[in-house]
Amino acid sequence: MPHAIPTEISCDTPVPPARRARGGRAAMQVRRGTGAGAGVNPLHVPYITRGIPTHDIASEESLEAIIATADRILAEIGIEFREDPETVRLFQQAGGKAREVGPEAWNVTFEPGLIRGLLATAPAEFTQHARNPAKSVRIGGKSMVFAPAYGSPFVMDLDKGRRYGTIEDFQNLIKLAQSSPWLHHSGGTICEPTDIPVNKRHLDMVYAHMRYSDRAFLGSITAPERAEDSIEMCRILFGAEYVDSHCVIMGNFNSTSPLVWDGVSTRGIRAYAAAGQGSIHLPFLLGGAVSPLTMPGAIAQCLAESMVGCALTQLVRPGAPAILGSFLSSMSLRTGSPTFGTPEPALGSLVMGQIARRLKMPLRCAGNFSTSKLPDGQAMTQAMMSMMSAVNGGANFILHSAGFLDGLLSMSYEKLMLDMDMCGALHAWLKGLEVNEDTLAFEALAEKGPGEHMFGCAHTLRHYETAYWDSGLDDNTTYETWSEAGGVDAMTRANGAWKAVLATYEAPPLDAGIEGALCDFIAQRKSEMADAWY
Amino acid sequence: MPHAIPTEISCDTPVPPARRARGGRAAMQVRRGTGAGAGVNPLHVPYITRGIPTHDIASEESLEAIIATADRILAEIGIEFREDPETVRLFQQAGGKAREVGPEAWNVTFEPGLIRGLLATAPAEFTQHARNPAKSVRIGGKSMVFAPAYGSPFVMDLDKGRRYGTIEDFQNLIKLAQSSPWLHHSGGTICEPTDIPVNKRHLDMVYAHMRYSDRAFLGSITAPERAEDSIEMCRILFGAEYVDSHCVIMGNFNSTSPLVWDGVSTRGIRAYAAAGQGSIHLPFLLGGAVSPLTMPGAIAQCLAESMVGCALTQLVRPGAPAILGSFLSSMSLRTGSPTFGTPEPALGSLVMGQIARRLKMPLRCAGNFSTSKLPDGQAMTQAMMSMMSAVNGGANFILHSAGFLDGLLSMSYEKLMLDMDMCGALHAWLKGLEVNEDTLAFEALAEKGPGEHMFGCAHTLRHYETAYWDSGLDDNTTYETWSEAGGVDAMTRANGAWKAVLATYEAPPLDAGIEGALCDFIAQRKSEMADAWY
Repeated sequence: MPHAIPTEISCDTPVPPARRARGGRAAMQVRRGTGAGAGVNPLHVPYITRGIPTHDIASEESLEAIIATADRILAEIGIEFREDPETVRLFQQAGGKAREVGPEAWNVTFEPGLIRGLLATAPAEFTQHARNPAKSVRIGGKSMVFAPAYGSPFVMDLDKGRRYGTIEDFQNLIKLAQSSPWLHHSGGTICEPTDIPVNKRHLDMVYAHMRYSDRAFLGSITAPERAEDSIEMCRILFGAEYVDSHCVIMGNFNSTSPLVWDGVSTRGIRAYAAAGQGSIHLPFLLGGAVSPLTMPGAIAQCLAESMVGCALTQLVRPGAPAILGSFLSSMSLRTGSPTFGTPEPALGSLVMGQIARRLKMPLRCAGNFSTSKLPDGQAMTQAMMSMMSAVNGGANFILHSAGFLDGLLSMSYEKLMLDMDMCGALHAWLKGLEVNEDTLAFEALAEKGPGEHMFGCAHTLRHYETAYWDSGLDDNTTYETWSEAGGVDAMTRANGAWKAVLATYEAPPLDAGIEGALCDFIAQRKSEMADAWY
Repeated sequence: MPHAIPTEISCDTPVPPARRARGGRAAMQVRRGTGAGAGVNPLHVPYITRGIPTHDIASEESLEAIIATADRILAEIGIEFREDPETVRLFQQAGGKAREVGPEAWNVTFEPGLIRGLLATAPAEFTQHARNPAKSVRIGGKSMVFAPAYGSPFVMDLDKGRRYGTIEDFQNLIKLAQSSPWLHHSGGTICEPTDIPVNKRHLDMVYAHMRYSDRAFLGSITAPERAEDSIEMCRILFGAEYVDSHCVIMGNFNSTSPLVWDGVSTRGIRAYAAAGQGSIHLPFLLGGAVSPLTMPGAIAQCLAESMVGCALTQLVRPGAPAILGSFLSSMSLRTGSPTFGTPEPALGSLVMGQIARRLKMPLRCAGNFSTSKLPDGQAMTQAMMSMMSAVNGGANFILHSAGFLDGLLSMSYEKLMLDMDMCGALHAWLKGLEVNEDTLAFEALAEKGPGEHMFGCAHTLRHYETAYWDSGLDDNTTYETWSEAGGVDAMTRANGAWKAVLATYEAPPLDAGIEGALCDFIAQRKSEMADAWY
């Protein structure tokens, strides 16, 4: 199974010949292949192209039963839409049956297959363009994109423990993620910058992604006008014309499970779709609280909710990029607390992958989940179980690939480093094994024959630099060497690593005119609003 | 994909009607379903029956190319046998071409397919019987058996750090493993009891397995007479007649890679096979040192070496249980040290699983590998990557399922606990998802409809006790609760856990007459030999 390492971005969206207005993409191109070691190690790629088959655990019959249950949920129970009559109108127009169920609340039911039919115009794959074109990412098909964790109000490090995130943390975390060759995307709310007013936060967050990373990123979704601001800033960065015809930003939208889409989300979805930008449609399903405890039911519900969000984009602008989302979690029987990185949701993620491929939709799924409060053995056991399900299940966009701790309440500086290193190992995993005369290595064994070591044989010399993934954080020395060096554990090494990366971080070049225009826009928008803290 | 949980042991080997001599199996039966919580949790089983499909990553063409390369290695390079002319004679008689290459050393080549043909009489599946029949294990097919790590000279715990293992450690570790419902087999050299003379060690080790565990176990392989002693002790425990017709003990034999089988191993293999007992045939392949760096070549070599060991058993006694073995490892480019828990060997393990199924042979493969020197985040990241490859690859006997640290140089008390807990999670993983009307849970969503939490719905109440795996070691409480309780990490909890288990451990009942006979045998054998420390 030879594996083709992508050497360039798929060119479904050629750069337009002319640029205009406040910038344009060519203006902020930086050197190709920038970043820590990019271009040196053949595992360094702008995104992964999966070289191993997915791990398919559900039978065709099971998949059909789950999809049929999603259809039945939509037909017999329906989805409740709140505070967005335009979305209800769009779904009615498409064949949904609406019924008012409260003030500004409508239940809409859909004949079996209606919603799935609306997905026909959604792209199976698309490119999200980065300001550095060498870092644009392909989303869908065999592509896999790793992005850091998203949405924690707290940050943690070993020095200062847990505290509310600030804009300084936000910037630091973007810089750390940008510095790793094993992530492909800058993510979005890498932590909540709680020292900035809620109604102005998004401006500083989007700016930090644009300024401190040259990768693709996610914009604001907390209010429709903040979504619009995020897209407007992209027009400054990329040029308005370019933005209209290319996906350069995405929003990550949560349904209000079970079976509700609120107006803040649906209006945000409509804003991104109308601008031709991408959106992720994510039910956050905590089993027993907002979804059935049994995975097949949770998957059916997830599918029903997520498909409706995706379908809305197609009613607004057919062809707009939309990503199915799945975030399945469990709970501890003993405490009632949510648990992450457990086996049942991991199995569910494999099945979601099968369903997404059947629907020909890109999938966001799972990540490096954990409920541990430290980047310890528990954290990494849980993270690896969850992350392996994402990559073996063929998820295309893996938000929460790094830093997730404390049940998503905290972004951990140290776990970010450990997870990014693990993401490197997963590059080697997903590359798979190439079987050919050279790798079958008959000559290597024949060269010296039985009983002779192979350190110096020609095959070894030819392959030793590239045969194995080599972690940048693991300690693989002897006990004696490790012990003499202080006997430190992985989280302590990770603590040193993030400090070293921040100390040498250099921001990718950004055209001064564009930077000025972004700052002007932010200042203008901030001056128009009084601070709001809710 | 419904999953049938095995409720009793497959009865391919009915208990004979009459027992005689020094014991007999019925005499040491203990209560069925003993052990920590066994029989309560439906995940507690004497061994796992895989309920999810394997993750097959290699194409048919690739598998054929690897097998053809193994055949070519055997035909054109050959295997060197040392200090065991009888084994050479057996292989010559079977069609191998022998050529003397040194004092007591012969190179034997085999026509393509000859060795694979000899495996035709080896059982695809077999039962290893435990002294507690409820704990007998099935090895092969869809069965999976977890056993603790094997062979470390050192032990580690957080209190005393690393030191040479003693017989007290050996006994403690057997007791801890026996106390976990998530292992199925007592393993073998759980650590080296270095305070006992080398030539007498095996007697105390086998006794410890028999006395402190009621599960199946591995015997000595370090000298043919020690293999014979191990089997003789089984005759005392199970009755000689029973042993002759049932597999009750196995030996784990290493080839001397590349492509050598030494006489200590082959004479041991012959001893186990002659007694109708099981054997594992394990090349320990450190890429670049004793095997090619590229996985397809390492797998081909592994297959060649392991098949030859398995074939020897069939020449001695057709039908004797034999297990293909695979232990693939990598090295750090920066230090030249072996590395464990890395992605390339994990991919190799998946492929070995495919090949073993094709050959209809049981497979021992991978485990909870790590090169970390502490049971920290590195340890568990590496362990999980390796262990997931074992279980997703369909390995049947997973030695090193718990405790492996420090590149196998140390058995860690704390990692033993963490790994055993992870093995519990893997029970849930391997059970898979059952898709049916109840688990699809349409009624659960319909009961209250959109926007209503599901804590109290009938489906939740029916399933909440069994829906999710619940770790016994993880801390899934809130940050505040965890912090108020001292904010301890996973390894510290594991430290408390092993002490608590040892404090309440009770040995499974053993007939006093048998115990006395075992002790008499050990005393007699020890009196016949002067202490030897090499």
